[in-house]
Amino acid sequence: MALIVAKFGGSSVASVEKIKNITLRIRDMRDQGDDAVVVVSAMGDTTDDLIKLARATGNELCCRELDMLLATGEQQSAALLALTLKNLGCDAISLTGWQAGIRSDSTYNKARINGVDTERIKKELNQGKIVVIAGFQGISPEGDITTLGRGGSDTSAVALAISLKADSCMIFTDVEGVYTADPRIVKDARKLSKISYEEMLEMASLGAVVMQPRAVELAMLYRIDVEVRSSFNSNPGTIITGVENMEKQRVVTGVTHDLNCAKFALFDVPDRPGIAKTLFKALAEHGINVDMVIQSAMRDNRNDIAFTIMRDDLDRALPVVREIAEKISASGMTYGEDVAKVSVVGAGMQSNPGVAAAMFEALADENINIQMISTSEIRISCIIDRSCIETAVRALHRKFALDTLD
Amino acid sequence: MALIVAKFGGSSVASVEKIKNITLRIRDMRDQGDDAVVVVSAMGDTTDDLIKLARATGNELCCRELDMLLATGEQQSAALLALTLKNLGCDAISLTGWQAGIRSDSTYNKARINGVDTERIKKELNQGKIVVIAGFQGISPEGDITTLGRGGSDTSAVALAISLKADSCMIFTDVEGVYTADPRIVKDARKLSKISYEEMLEMASLGAVVMQPRAVELAMLYRIDVEVRSSFNSNPGTIITGVENMEKQRVVTGVTHDLNCAKFALFDVPDRPGIAKTLFKALAEHGINVDMVIQSAMRDNRNDIAFTIMRDDLDRALPVVREIAEKISASGMTYGEDVAKVSVVGAGMQSNPGVAAAMFEALADENINIQMISTSEIRISCIIDRSCIETAVRALHRKFALDTLD
Repeated sequence: MALIVAKFGGSSVASVEKIKNITLRIRDMRDQGDDAVVVVSAMGDTTDDLIKLARATGNELCCRELDMLLATGEQQSAALLALTLKNLGCDAISLTGWQAGIRSDSTYNKARINGVDTERIKKELNQGKIVVIAGFQGISPEGDITTLGRGGSDTSAVALAISLKADSCMIFTDVEGVYTADPRIVKDARKLSKISYEEMLEMASLGAVVMQPRAVELAMLYRIDVEVRSSFNSNPGTIITGVENMEKQRVVTGVTHDLNCAKFALFDVPDRPGIAKTLFKALAEHGINVDMVIQSAMRDNRNDIAFTIMRDDLDRALPVVREIAEKISASGMTYGEDVAKVSVVGAGMQSNPGVAAAMFEALADENINIQMISTSEIRISCIIDRSCIETAVRALHRKFALDTLD
Repeated sequence: MALIVAKFGGSSVASVEKIKNITLRIRDMRDQGDDAVVVVSAMGDTTDDLIKLARATGNELCCRELDMLLATGEQQSAALLALTLKNLGCDAISLTGWQAGIRSDSTYNKARINGVDTERIKKELNQGKIVVIAGFQGISPEGDITTLGRGGSDTSAVALAISLKADSCMIFTDVEGVYTADPRIVKDARKLSKISYEEMLEMASLGAVVMQPRAVELAMLYRIDVEVRSSFNSNPGTIITGVENMEKQRVVTGVTHDLNCAKFALFDVPDRPGIAKTLFKALAEHGINVDMVIQSAMRDNRNDIAFTIMRDDLDRALPVVREIAEKISASGMTYGEDVAKVSVVGAGMQSNPGVAAAMFEALADENINIQMISTSEIRISCIIDRSCIETAVRALHRKFALDTLD
């Protein structure tokens, strides 16, 4: 008899009808003789609706009270799932984060899990119950309710799987797994049966968010396998695991793209120490993450600086960049939303030189101009014209033969 | 510096706008140098909406999970009120039932409070905070969330006032207090400045529910005063208190009426022991409360039995009564919704004979026929024709000079 930790996201519990659908999947586990701990997110848009209410008070930023408010969403979906399971004849019990023993620090809105006291969960499992746990939440050392920040329910599930020494951790979502590219763009994109933690982290941060990076990091730290699969059917998904477990070394594992990009350029910036710091510190203070940066070769002790941010942050970034441009006496500033990022990811590229060259060649063959480049050990990303993104993804998928290899 | 426990009901926290209104009232307490513990119900129709969701699972009756679901309503309004208070510059903190130390038994859906561990509340008060507590909920000895049943938030407030030895317990509601009669019917109805626990209990059970009877009983048991007042203005309300505190003994304190009545009559019921038991036990098993009963003088060893129930229960009662009527071979059965109940209540009538006679006289003077009568030590109720109810209430209010006495 195995112990499975299964997490269902907000879209899987968005209505009582959808909750009824997933109970069938949970009953299947039970029918196979497995014990199940089920972690749920809040129903559909509940969290957003609660944030709107908090905002209406004029005080959305008060962290402790916001967590008190937001944590109700997962408590509701957990209770409704337990009710539905019991109605189906499966004995079930719902637990809040604090009842499930999920201890966190006191960093409201983005608390980190310190540990899980599993006594209560084990007691309920021993009584033959399916244990449904409200994700995204914990309890601080002071006895206050905390929430774990974006993707918190994925992190709850992984932490529970680790603490309970579960045989399996499954993240049920609205996609079937991790693909070699977005199947909406590349018709012959393949579902990967396995992917390494490192690759998954890169792909998630590049726009293919099937599982939250933070939860992947936690799984990687404790070396537990996590399977991402569909909540709508019983097809096998993608197993996120350590490289040492992988049967075959691929050079490139997948192609990802991200349309949530905007680009800034500042011209004729003085070539003095501290200039870049001034700019990027100001952006950081406004909570705006800078993705790629290039600085052109200097002429007359002046540089051009270009960088990209998330397109969602553009409105907030504009006044900040304008002010800094003036302050550092740049001769001009431009920005644009007509860019996108395409990346190839693969643990294998560490030992395979020539991946970058092949990538650039594939893009050149399609007459696509590369505006910026950034790389990590297992990733190469290019900023290109937004209108070319689908062509680029297809060309790279073909170039690295992702439709055939595994 | 006094400690005030103040409870605001669902209509007072139905929207963020309404929550903003009551924060002004809470700030007033603070400005007068008082400490405040505020108990809130769920926003508007939240509890009903959650019950609908539970019903949609097909399993509304599973008590533990239902409490888990319902308790989120009060947690949300408590968090939103704390957010709003903080926005107004009043330091505040919200606590769930379990954080506030409200210990209950394990009778889900209608748990009774065993006690309150006040350490956390006192700690927060000592730090100068307004403590906002989610009403209607507690924690069982097993560490599970319980709810206290209908009117639970009133009971939470009274229990907290007792445990904290508060100087004042105020129930803020959408009426200004307890009136000598319904002001919509009797123009010169007066707001009572004081009413005894016993009178309040009678009046509440007779349709004038400004405060839940269960909370009144708790206040009576511990002899603490409770003030019912409006959440929309700062007028003084009605103080519910012990008779010994009352300045003046009134014979009749108020006139109440209840339109939620339906009447059954069974004809020619055999005069055997156990017949009434059969009928009323069957109704009780279906959760239907019988209010008044009369049994006519027997003729030929057969009786007529008439009784009233709440009109809301009529549809459920009909098949039960029909079946029993056949079983006990009654010669016939009738029922009607064209009845209503009018009552006079007053602790003073215990020592004043003649109240019943005065009541019957007042009704007779208006040509109102009395169909059934029931009495307690401090109450006389009559079932009359529904169409006469307003005339009856006005006549009785006049008869006992309720517009002038205090």
